[in-house]
Amino acid sequence: MNEAAQTLDGWYCLHDFRSMDWTAWKMLSSDERQAAIHEFLSLVEKWNTTQERKEGSHALYTVVGQKADFMMMILRPTMEELNEIETEFNKTKLAEYTIPAFSYVSVVELSNYIPSDGGDPYQNPYVQGRLYPILPKAKHVCFYPMDKRREGNDNWYMLPMEDRRSLMKSHGMIGRQYAGKVKQIITGSVGFDDYEWGVTLFADDVLQFKKLVYEMRFDEVSARYGEFGAFFVGNILEEERVSSFLHV
Amino acid sequence: MNEAAQTLDGWYCLHDFRSMDWTAWKMLSSDERQAAIHEFLSLVEKWNTTQERKEGSHALYTVVGQKADFMMMILRPTMEELNEIETEFNKTKLAEYTIPAFSYVSVVELSNYIPSDGGDPYQNPYVQGRLYPILPKAKHVCFYPMDKRREGNDNWYMLPMEDRRSLMKSHGMIGRQYAGKVKQIITGSVGFDDYEWGVTLFADDVLQFKKLVYEMRFDEVSARYGEFGAFFVGNILEEERVSSFLHV
Amino acid sequence: MNEAAQTLDGWYCLHDFRSMDWTAWKMLSSDERQAAIHEFLSLVEKWNTTQERKEGSHALYTVVGQKADFMMMILRPTMEELNEIETEFNKTKLAEYTIPAFSYVSVVELSNYIPSDGGDPYQNPYVQGRLYPILPKAKHVCFYPMDKRREGNDNWYMLPMEDRRSLMKSHGMIGRQYAGKVKQIITGSVGFDDYEWGVTLFADDVLQFKKLVYEMRFDEVSARYGEFGAFFVGNILEEERVSSFLHV
Amino acid sequence: MNEAAQTLDGWYCLHDFRSMDWTAWKMLSSDERQAAIHEFLSLVEKWNTTQERKEGSHALYTVVGQKADFMMMILRPTMEELNEIETEFNKTKLAEYTIPAFSYVSVVELSNYIPSDGGDPYQNPYVQGRLYPILPKAKHVCFYPMDKRREGNDNWYMLPMEDRRSLMKSHGMIGRQYAGKVKQIITGSVGFDDYEWGVTLFADDVLQFKKLVYEMRFDEVSARYGEFGAFFVGNILEEERVSSFLHV
Amino acid sequence: MNEAAQTLDGWYCLHDFRSMDWTAWKMLSSDERQAAIHEFLSLVEKWNTTQERKEGSHALYTVVGQKADFMMMILRPTMEELNEIETEFNKTKLAEYTIPAFSYVSVVELSNYIPSDGGDPYQNPYVQGRLYPILPKAKHVCFYPMDKRREGNDNWYMLPMEDRRSLMKSHGMIGRQYAGKVKQIITGSVGFDDYEWGVTLFADDVLQFKKLVYEMRFDEVSARYGEFGAFFVGNILEEERVSSFLHV
Repeated sequence: MNEAAQTLDGWYCLHDFRSMDWTAWKMLSSDERQAAIHEFLSLVEKWNTTQERKEGSHALYTVVGQKADFMMMILRPTMEELNEIETEFNKTKLAEYTIPAFSYVSVVELSNYIPSDGGDPYQNPYVQGRLYPILPKAKHVCFYPMDKRREGNDNWYMLPMEDRRSLMKSHGMIGRQYAGKVKQIITGSVGFDDYEWGVTLFADDVLQFKKLVYEMRFDEVSARYGEFGAFFVGNILEEERVSSFLHV
Repeated sequence: MNEAAQTLDGWYCLHDFRSMDWTAWKMLSSDERQAAIHEFLSLVEKWNTTQERKEGSHALYTVVGQKADFMMMILRPTMEELNEIETEFNKTKLAEYTIPAFSYVSVVELSNYIPSDGGDPYQNPYVQGRLYPILPKAKHVCFYPMDKRREGNDNWYMLPMEDRRSLMKSHGMIGRQYAGKVKQIITGSVGFDDYEWGVTLFADDVLQFKKLVYEMRFDEVSARYGEFGAFFVGNILEEERVSSFLHV
Repeated sequence: MNEAAQTLDGWYCLHDFRSMDWTAWKMLSSDERQAAIHEFLSLVEKWNTTQERKEGSHALYTVVGQKADFMMMILRPTMEELNEIETEFNKTKLAEYTIPAFSYVSVVELSNYIPSDGGDPYQNPYVQGRLYPILPKAKHVCFYPMDKRREGNDNWYMLPMEDRRSLMKSHGMIGRQYAGKVKQIITGSVGFDDYEWGVTLFADDVLQFKKLVYEMRFDEVSARYGEFGAFFVGNILEEERVSSFLHV
Repeated sequence: MNEAAQTLDGWYCLHDFRSMDWTAWKMLSSDERQAAIHEFLSLVEKWNTTQERKEGSHALYTVVGQKADFMMMILRPTMEELNEIETEFNKTKLAEYTIPAFSYVSVVELSNYIPSDGGDPYQNPYVQGRLYPILPKAKHVCFYPMDKRREGNDNWYMLPMEDRRSLMKSHGMIGRQYAGKVKQIITGSVGFDDYEWGVTLFADDVLQFKKLVYEMRFDEVSARYGEFGAFFVGNILEEERVSSFLHV
Repeated sequence: MNEAAQTLDGWYCLHDFRSMDWTAWKMLSSDERQAAIHEFLSLVEKWNTTQERKEGSHALYTVVGQKADFMMMILRPTMEELNEIETEFNKTKLAEYTIPAFSYVSVVELSNYIPSDGGDPYQNPYVQGRLYPILPKAKHVCFYPMDKRREGNDNWYMLPMEDRRSLMKSHGMIGRQYAGKVKQIITGSVGFDDYEWGVTLFADDVLQFKKLVYEMRFDEVSARYGEFGAFFVGNILEEERVSSFLHV
């Protein structure tokens, strides 16, 4: 039995990708569309209130390409709240004109490969800030799920703890070079969704996603042990831009 | 010819995942929706009676994310009963407003890697309790199908019985550490569905699913020999909450 | 060039899996549904006549889980007849309320790894009975397609004939232990459909499917060389039960 | 840099598989259906004229199983003509009642592993006959796409030319044993579609497809280096049978 | 930590593949269709203006086979502009009669395996021409996404920089032999879409796509390290041909 890495876990997280059914949307009267937009913005307003109380956070991004038209990322203290928000959205008028495109269920996670100073990490303000993050208003988002490989000689889960720790340390170094350029939120999804982790990146310069992910790919952790799912890239959808995005 | 593990088999099991067609559902009149909900709850009432007689069991959970909106897990003594329940549900009014999302057919199974005391295990009350379980009212459920790998040097079915027995023993140890936190029901599906087993976990603390599955992934049985299908996570849908869940 | 195994080939075989569109089906008037059922039963009656003449055979099973609602398995002397039956069914009223779920095209096959006694095997009554089988009225059916693996060191088609023969012999032994409990029909589909074989099992005790397939998985032929497609399991749909199955 | 095999390339080729929407088709009046059939047969008549002029060729087959209802195979001197024929079909009345099921884009190809006699092969009448073939009116067709494997030690593209040549020679021997029974048209699709080649077989005895493909599977070229896509099998749809095939 | 290759990055790129819903399109009146075509051509006219200003480029091609009916390839300086163009198209009348078939998000990329002369490459006119290309009016297009393999001993990302550089050099040689026959635009998509690169080829002789890609497949970079996605091939759709292409 190999020693498992410990994790610290924060808010639960739902990534919800939707495509618009523009044809049906256009069949509504302008008033009906306005009402649907208004209802959706009221929902977002409620989410804003929750975020101001630091009881959760959320982000809205349009998605480039046909994979989806927009993405809602929602953080909440419980799985029940995620489920309620999802169901509440599903019952809105706007949702009738969206097609589910992809979703991901996870929980904000800090991996504990780095030894702690002995105190309760959940009381550490830095750790708290990372486990219960207020999502940044960055211009761009990138999301992808990933696994650690278990294949022949490239089996992450058969590596001794010490090797994993040292590999992750060098991996973390790359991330740190992008400090100030890319904000990275790692969410764990073992037991919750099809991959083991979700990676959400935020940046004002969209090219930094490519530079970061490409550079990491040459790092042994990714090169030998990374298995990647679909990649999504998007642009921030500020509340004040929702109306024009949905205007037809 | 390698020696096959013996299994004890109990109730047959159907996991039935459904998405709601909320748009069509909203087009019904409030009275029609009430009638549909009432009809569905009568079905559940019938299932409750069966469960009280200990002639089967069932559970209802909402599912987080777009994979499905809710899940019905049904246990019965025969494959015919599962088929009838499924067909009966398919003919209800509510079913017209659901979209099949995923299903899994299996049978409750105890693997017999642990040597018995010689008696007929089916007469053992402990074994009976595990083969014919009344599903707990836990707050959360996790379901995933899995295979044992047969790939190059990582071929479970080519391992000698003794090695498999000892690997499963250490694997079981991890599960036992979660006693009281996670209830695990293993169902076998070789010859019935696409994977070899289904794993259904119940817990009041949803994070325990992640901790258990992640810890197990470092165990050689999972690390070298586990192949996992899709993961579903959900929240209990008590009968009294069905109406509000379906209220639009 | 490795020596290919010889096969004996009998009736062509179509497995046709269908899901019901229950919502649309319910929209028909009771009379229309009766007419559709009657038309379908007339088709089955025609198939019965063919079967009585020993010019083919067929079986009807409901399928457990969402993969399909029912399965028609049709055996005929020519590929043209299979195509005609399929097209004839597609033009019925009932077919308008079904959704194609899966199909498989193959031919009943006896592999000739066992040396013959020298005579023309097609004149052997035992062989005839197996190549042109009348399908049993067993309570349950199991169907799955499969390949022999060609992967790195596990490449069936690179094994010498002698090794394949001896492996198949031990494999057949397991099957023989289930004589009287499971009837097995092997159909070859190389050049006809996506896998190399279809396996159709019939049994009155559905658990025997799991026992047989699981036991075989520890046999080297399956453990190292078997690649399996989707598994379907079902319950017999006697003609007299068709009306109640379709009653809404 | 390994030496690439040279190829000779002839007519461009489109395999177009379609399923009928029988339900919608039946909703048409008999006159409308007749008009649609007539329009389609006029298109085929045009293709016949092209074929008589030896400026292309085509074939119509019904397909067994749910993968498709019929297949059109079209050969033309340019990619533009294939595109026009496809678009022209898409604009017909009949096309409104078909659902695209699968297509394949390729070009008739002769691999040049066999050394030439020095002359311009495109002037060789035998070569011309094979590059610009008039498709036979065989009773059955079989189509599948395939790749040469590039995986670990089984990497076709890393083999020296001499090895590939000698492997292909023995492979070709098998094909030659089926001369008179199976006509084989190889089309190359590197850069055009998802696999590297399409294989189209024609035979009056459908069982010869199985015998040929199965025998080849034991040949090292297929056993170690063949990767196969979906298999389609069908029966000839003579023009005079189109009306009855579409009669409802 | 292995040294990552540096890249130069130019315009962002969206490949947008669409299928026509011909049945619905035919239901429009001729006037409505004319209006929809006119609206689409006005959009293209706007793109032309952008291209004349060298602030982007675009290309329209019909696609052979069922994968799509046409493809729009759009190059722009920012990800936001790609998103706006996509949304603007989605809101047009024509878009109501198209079905999204596939899309790809990337950025024009020059890999920097070749050492530079020391100056700022972005100021180099040759480099500028390649990073901000005006797409040619070639008769044919070929598009496919690809990865570099990370599998067992064939792991591109574990190779030393020097080896990758020398492999890429020989790979580039093949491309250069096709100068004047095939124009190749490489776009990077790490962090943007599911593969690592997109390859878009332009040629007046469609056979050159096959020759180039096939020849490259024998080169070690492709043979051992290339993983390819779907291939699309098409014919140029000049603006003046749009009306006739959409005429029904």
